[in-house]
Amino acid sequence: MIDLVADLGEGFGAYTMGDDEALLELLTSANVACGFHAGDPRIMDATVRGCVANGVAVGAHPSFPDLAGFGRRAMDLTAEEVRTDVLYQVGALQAFARAHGTRVRHVAPHGRLGNLVAVRADYATAVVDAVAALDDSLIVLAQDGELADAARARGLRVAVVGIADRAYRDDGTLVPRSEAGAVIHDADEIARRTLRMVTEGVVGSVGGKDIPVACDTVLLHGDTPGALALAARIRSDLLAADVRITGLDEVLNGKGA
Amino acid sequence: MIDLVADLGEGFGAYTMGDDEALLELLTSANVACGFHAGDPRIMDATVRGCVANGVAVGAHPSFPDLAGFGRRAMDLTAEEVRTDVLYQVGALQAFARAHGTRVRHVAPHGRLGNLVAVRADYATAVVDAVAALDDSLIVLAQDGELADAARARGLRVAVVGIADRAYRDDGTLVPRSEAGAVIHDADEIARRTLRMVTEGVVGSVGGKDIPVACDTVLLHGDTPGALALAARIRSDLLAADVRITGLDEVLNGKGA
Amino acid sequence: MIDLVADLGEGFGAYTMGDDEALLELLTSANVACGFHAGDPRIMDATVRGCVANGVAVGAHPSFPDLAGFGRRAMDLTAEEVRTDVLYQVGALQAFARAHGTRVRHVAPHGRLGNLVAVRADYATAVVDAVAALDDSLIVLAQDGELADAARARGLRVAVVGIADRAYRDDGTLVPRSEAGAVIHDADEIARRTLRMVTEGVVGSVGGKDIPVACDTVLLHGDTPGALALAARIRSDLLAADVRITGLDEVLNGKGA
Amino acid sequence: MIDLVADLGEGFGAYTMGDDEALLELLTSANVACGFHAGDPRIMDATVRGCVANGVAVGAHPSFPDLAGFGRRAMDLTAEEVRTDVLYQVGALQAFARAHGTRVRHVAPHGRLGNLVAVRADYATAVVDAVAALDDSLIVLAQDGELADAARARGLRVAVVGIADRAYRDDGTLVPRSEAGAVIHDADEIARRTLRMVTEGVVGSVGGKDIPVACDTVLLHGDTPGALALAARIRSDLLAADVRITGLDEVLNGKGA
Repeated sequence: MIDLVADLGEGFGAYTMGDDEALLELLTSANVACGFHAGDPRIMDATVRGCVANGVAVGAHPSFPDLAGFGRRAMDLTAEEVRTDVLYQVGALQAFARAHGTRVRHVAPHGRLGNLVAVRADYATAVVDAVAALDDSLIVLAQDGELADAARARGLRVAVVGIADRAYRDDGTLVPRSEAGAVIHDADEIARRTLRMVTEGVVGSVGGKDIPVACDTVLLHGDTPGALALAARIRSDLLAADVRITGLDEVLNGKGA
Repeated sequence: MIDLVADLGEGFGAYTMGDDEALLELLTSANVACGFHAGDPRIMDATVRGCVANGVAVGAHPSFPDLAGFGRRAMDLTAEEVRTDVLYQVGALQAFARAHGTRVRHVAPHGRLGNLVAVRADYATAVVDAVAALDDSLIVLAQDGELADAARARGLRVAVVGIADRAYRDDGTLVPRSEAGAVIHDADEIARRTLRMVTEGVVGSVGGKDIPVACDTVLLHGDTPGALALAARIRSDLLAADVRITGLDEVLNGKGA
Repeated sequence: MIDLVADLGEGFGAYTMGDDEALLELLTSANVACGFHAGDPRIMDATVRGCVANGVAVGAHPSFPDLAGFGRRAMDLTAEEVRTDVLYQVGALQAFARAHGTRVRHVAPHGRLGNLVAVRADYATAVVDAVAALDDSLIVLAQDGELADAARARGLRVAVVGIADRAYRDDGTLVPRSEAGAVIHDADEIARRTLRMVTEGVVGSVGGKDIPVACDTVLLHGDTPGALALAARIRSDLLAADVRITGLDEVLNGKGA
Repeated sequence: MIDLVADLGEGFGAYTMGDDEALLELLTSANVACGFHAGDPRIMDATVRGCVANGVAVGAHPSFPDLAGFGRRAMDLTAEEVRTDVLYQVGALQAFARAHGTRVRHVAPHGRLGNLVAVRADYATAVVDAVAALDDSLIVLAQDGELADAARARGLRVAVVGIADRAYRDDGTLVPRSEAGAVIHDADEIARRTLRMVTEGVVGSVGGKDIPVACDTVLLHGDTPGALALAARIRSDLLAADVRITGLDEVLNGKGA
């Protein structure tokens, strides 16, 4: 069983970003921008409506407050600023979920904030504080790291995102982006690695070993025609391998069983 | 019975506005800024905490998206933009309410949006659509006009704000601000008019008649020392006249009985 | 002689808008967004660099401060707010012009502000005050109306924008957008009307008359493939008709001669 | 000879910050906020007008783009983002200077950007690139560090800001803020240290030694009544010691002679 997720609703005002309509047909979950790095109330409304119409679970995608930088620039916020910014953004998205008869089901920090919560314990705790205060049935979507640890310690459910387009070392850590070969660009290889992650729970390392990896959901992209084609292929490859594509609730319940 | 309300949490970042601490001791309800004309996540968090500590009911104070103009400049938004902007702002405040163990109890549009919902039926409907979608136990705080009418028609409870510092014509309408004498500046007179509104349900017109007025809550101000002193005086005058000062729930239930 | 102008640099952060590179090869002037409805410092820098590399004159495209609405929503600013917002935006663009060894040559209010300066004398005066204070050699790019009148009265040069895709009444005024047939969508007809405006100084009215129209520059668009193809066709039609395509300085000097 | 400078125009919209009117009577130079951490076009206009009326030289106070954080939070911008953000902000202020018949005379990076340009060579170069492109007669106002070095290497004039309220080590470096005693709070001591810096060119270290320090201008504050009183006292102490208080041009020319 696997969940398929992508970032949606990342336009702003007159600006568009990615092909949300095409992605919605491939997904079981969506990370919806909440207005700080992208998204505005109209786009949030339309995105949640689209999720409901396609049976896609709505998740919040909170970010540093930096529209000009699309949330990709680190900002030296205090943990308290992170906690309150996350409360604000998830709360705003919950309003649109309620208006469309659904609920926010997960929270996935965006961009640089998403990178930092994996390594900064204070930010991880801030996000967990915000999530637990809002709804302790919310799933925290994270890579392995501080956020995943802090969420589990608080009793929150965690869904681990598999990363199929990054190279792994023999010790199971990612090759840093600063090194050559850190990012895998070949679509065939990404598709193959995704399939192995999901069906076998392993990924090949740069040293030629098979490394065990957790993977409750696969992050798809739709911002280029190539990305969208790859996303569709990953989905059909998984179906061809008899993998059940379903929402995070069922994936996590299945693991727990 | 009467509710006392004021606008709170209207600072932003390093900026402060008004004396919220002093006001909190006088109020039973607060209109809390939601980040569009004023307020930020830290200030919203601290304001809701202050409300809970002082037994003050939390209300949302949504606005046009115009920090530079403090929400006082008309913006030609579509009704759909108003609806989604209100959803976003009230939802964000609901998150802070939940984090502090309380709920948002009312919605009071701010500034120019507040003026326009009284006269534009499309905006009034947009606000009512947003409020009803979020929580049909929310009270709509309004002057008499389109918003109050639309809210009642939808089955929402409405609390009417008494306006003690504006002159009334014999027909019960306000003297427009463009005319001389429209705004009453004398503190003694405002205090007397407030007391009559609350205890007798009337206000003196410019023509010398007593006009019947609805008044479920009185709007106090705290942005100047004079305003704060007047607010305190209005409160003590009401108590001296044996008026019970209590939250909107009890005020509205009392009327319904 | 005719100038060809288009709106450029209307992306923001990670967002793009239109095909500036393709347009730059067709233009003699550019209206460059200044950060209020679109554009950011990186985009302004790149756009001015592109203008210089292609021999395109740089103009400022100031707007209401409304990124979420792309400057298309009316805002009830005071004239003083318009004056100071225009000073700020044109000054910011002048910095990039200076850094690239050129100067801002014209000012063309954007979107709703551009509509309102044609009919509101106070806004027209505010824009003229800002422009004259900065550089009295700046050309004001406008449709006929209050801004053009105020600029001429102040001794500023005015370049009139021909509007080839709008229907005209017999009295020379535009058919309002609220009426059917106000906007012309057929590319062939727009191209023919443009050519007549430039070469004959007339446009056909809805009543079948030829109406005299001023036209120092033609506004091209590049936000869709169809728009870009039409822009290229208008340019080649003009060249085929032996019209000299050149900057506003030469166009205006030629008229004065 | 000494210049006296303070940060001015740091309000925003309806918000005020500090007592600019009182400060203007004490200063010879002003660091004027440019809209990124504080300031808006109305406030910039009024501040420049006040400077001109009081014979105070106008300087630009560019910042990271972070109104919510008042420019005090580090943002991981690229050097190119710093360069273009500085161009934008200084250019915008130049427009108001021109409209009031004066010129921007210096540039002083604000807040966290001001800290970082002292230690990051890439940011220092970015600021110098922007300043030199705009006007090579602009003075760079800085503490000793990377920005001062880069500006001098480019042939720009540098004015060093004396820091009277910070403790110095024997080697002439500042005691880091993280250590006890780093900041001096006693007004008498700050006033005495300022006087010695200006008249003797030395400051007492934590080890009891007299350290030579450069000081072309003293930074005054006016955001509290205490700060304003101290600013006035520093000014009168300097005058009582027969120090000539004058603009940066004369101070720097005097040094060069």
